[in-house]
Amino acid sequence: MRIPNHVGIIPDGNRRWAVDKGLSKENGYISGIDPGLELFTLCKNAGIKEVTYYGFTVDNTKRPAEQRKAFTEACINAVKILSNQDAELLVVGNTKSDMFPQELMPYTVRKTFGNGGMKVNFLVNYSWKWDLDHLKEVKSRSNNINNQIQSYDVSRVDLIIRWGGRRRLSGFLPVQSIYSDFYVIDEYWPDFKPEHFYNALSWYSDQDVTLGG
Amino acid sequence: MRIPNHVGIIPDGNRRWAVDKGLSKENGYISGIDPGLELFTLCKNAGIKEVTYYGFTVDNTKRPAEQRKAFTEACINAVKILSNQDAELLVVGNTKSDMFPQELMPYTVRKTFGNGGMKVNFLVNYSWKWDLDHLKEVKSRSNNINNQIQSYDVSRVDLIIRWGGRRRLSGFLPVQSIYSDFYVIDEYWPDFKPEHFYNALSWYSDQDVTLGG
Repeated sequence: MRIPNHVGIIPDGNRRWAVDKGLSKENGYISGIDPGLELFTLCKNAGIKEVTYYGFTVDNTKRPAEQRKAFTEACINAVKILSNQDAELLVVGNTKSDMFPQELMPYTVRKTFGNGGMKVNFLVNYSWKWDLDHLKEVKSRSNNINNQIQSYDVSRVDLIIRWGGRRRLSGFLPVQSIYSDFYVIDEYWPDFKPEHFYNALSWYSDQDVTLGG
Repeated sequence: MRIPNHVGIIPDGNRRWAVDKGLSKENGYISGIDPGLELFTLCKNAGIKEVTYYGFTVDNTKRPAEQRKAFTEACINAVKILSNQDAELLVVGNTKSDMFPQELMPYTVRKTFGNGGMKVNFLVNYSWKWDLDHLKEVKSRSNNINNQIQSYDVSRVDLIIRWGGRRRLSGFLPVQSIYSDFYVIDEYWPDFKPEHFYNALSWYSDQDVTLGG
């Protein structure tokens, strides 16, 4: 079986899950933390080298304050939980905004936790515009774009898995997603099951790799 | 029914279609021309304002010479056929390369043909790197990225339809595709049927529009 090097995770559907349970929308995020850790372990055991979680975006911060507070808390907790694992952790996002949680500042340079191993990127207050705007600042025009964006330390994504049924990228790492295969799971993220991940891997293994060629 | 303003078309599967018919790969492209015109008419009748065809990319030009010749010829013919319709036509791609067909140079500035109407963009020798590299040249850092890329005259894409079963963007307009909904048809492009398009429109109409919010 051909295993992707780098898997991108779009954990969507927390709010719809909450509403289906009769909860208010902001109560969905806390139920997205355990699946994140479970998926981390599955990725690691599968031999994946790098995983990127779509935490929250600058676009998302325009939502009602109680939702913003809830998804920010969930991201802080998720990063702290991951820092207790064996991982090389990096938080990527616009730190020069009030929306970036100060608790996550220490994670914005890649650090090894435990015995290291898999690279884990967590997008927090991320914005595709912020990511690409960096190209306007570069001095060398001949250099590779991948090294000149804000998220230069995040490599090309081979497989993107999105929960919650939407078939769109919603601004997820536009440069690294150029050649990614895109797998959508209809279930909401808090209803994560290992078989979702295995189905995605199995589907990915049947795809060809052309990198646009 | 909610109709997209701008539809992106990835007409993939020409080579696999040819091989299935017992033809050599390069013989698939010529059968992709008629579907392009048929789809143009369907889009126009549906009230779509803009359509973008993924002709060929800089990545594609690394293929064997007989394939390159065949897909280049097919794109030249397709653009000429569209210029006999009512359309506002624009060819977008890297013209400063030998791979760009000189016959299409007159179309690299948007022009009205017939009574105009729908905008039609045709990507020819297009490259996402070439498109984004333009950001390195800009003088105003505060301006909007969408106005500062090479393909600035191509607007945000609402719905991308890809034929041939692959679930990937393959470098298609990364900035304009940030929030696009992505619909995949398993059949190969030369087997285009109007119902593919109607199914895509119907699916699109059921999606929400959040633009990342």
